[in-house]
Amino acid sequence: MSKRNLPLSRVYALLETGPVVLITTAHKGRSNVMTQSWHTMIEFEPPLVGLVISNRNFSYDALIATRQCVINIPTAELARQVVGCGNVSGAKVDKFARFGLTCKAASRVRPPLIDECYVSLECRLRDTSLVDKYGFLVVEVVKAWKDPSVKIARTLHHQGKGKLIVAGE
Amino acid sequence: MSKRNLPLSRVYALLETGPVVLITTAHKGRSNVMTQSWHTMIEFEPPLVGLVISNRNFSYDALIATRQCVINIPTAELARQVVGCGNVSGAKVDKFARFGLTCKAASRVRPPLIDECYVSLECRLRDTSLVDKYGFLVVEVVKAWKDPSVKIARTLHHQGKGKLIVAGE
Repeated sequence: MSKRNLPLSRVYALLETGPVVLITTAHKGRSNVMTQSWHTMIEFEPPLVGLVISNRNFSYDALIATRQCVINIPTAELARQVVGCGNVSGAKVDKFARFGLTCKAASRVRPPLIDECYVSLECRLRDTSLVDKYGFLVVEVVKAWKDPSVKIARTLHHQGKGKLIVAGE
Repeated sequence: MSKRNLPLSRVYALLETGPVVLITTAHKGRSNVMTQSWHTMIEFEPPLVGLVISNRNFSYDALIATRQCVINIPTAELARQVVGCGNVSGAKVDKFARFGLTCKAASRVRPPLIDECYVSLECRLRDTSLVDKYGFLVVEVVKAWKDPSVKIARTLHHQGKGKLIVAGE
């Protein structure tokens, strides 16, 4: 193949294409949700997940203070909500109300499950040793929920610059 | 949605679906390649990538010793090679020869670019502070190559249990 030099500023769009997720938190009497796509599996079982969350996010403080979150995985039908949740801050807006997302009670943590997402993973914060350096957090999935009717999930994948693609085949 | 409890052992297949990559290393006079899918972007620029690589992998020692690797992103045409490279160890086999992958010289590191992959990212190891705990490494992309003729990349995404899907739409 005839590869050419690519500016380093465009590298992220090639690798960040894991499923876009909606992360919920609950703190000081209210819940919030953020759109996130920088994450990786770290261990199979108990499932450990690495999340990159900037301290500029409103959800960051809630996650650090409460050490709990829910990772919800949306499918293509929720593309509008996913983009919307990524473009406004929970500091100013109740995103559940604005984007029509339904909260359901989780079983092991206080942040809510998002009913419209086909997967919800209840998580507890396990490791913050790289949070100051990279915003990198390790969470453990303590309870997992999945809609068994979804066989092939049309998950959303970010391609940089706000462009989303849908998983296929 | 009517979500049901999911065994924690099945969580990884929901989140690990970022693009499957082929990571090359070079150590003690020979190169090797491994299939990998647990990674995340950590910073935009300079691009930092988090990789989870078990010390049971033959590539692990090479990466730790040389502090260099190349992350190559294959597309669907290479599915057979990707699965093959994931199922044998470089300790026993020259995977480039067995799977017909072509090495090209990189410009900033010693491990080779894989010519058949549409993207190759030359990387240097930057942080090993979580490697003993989780096999988690932070690498910096120091040079990036992309075939500009590939507009929409049909990348491969692991769905657990050896099942791969192709990115669509």
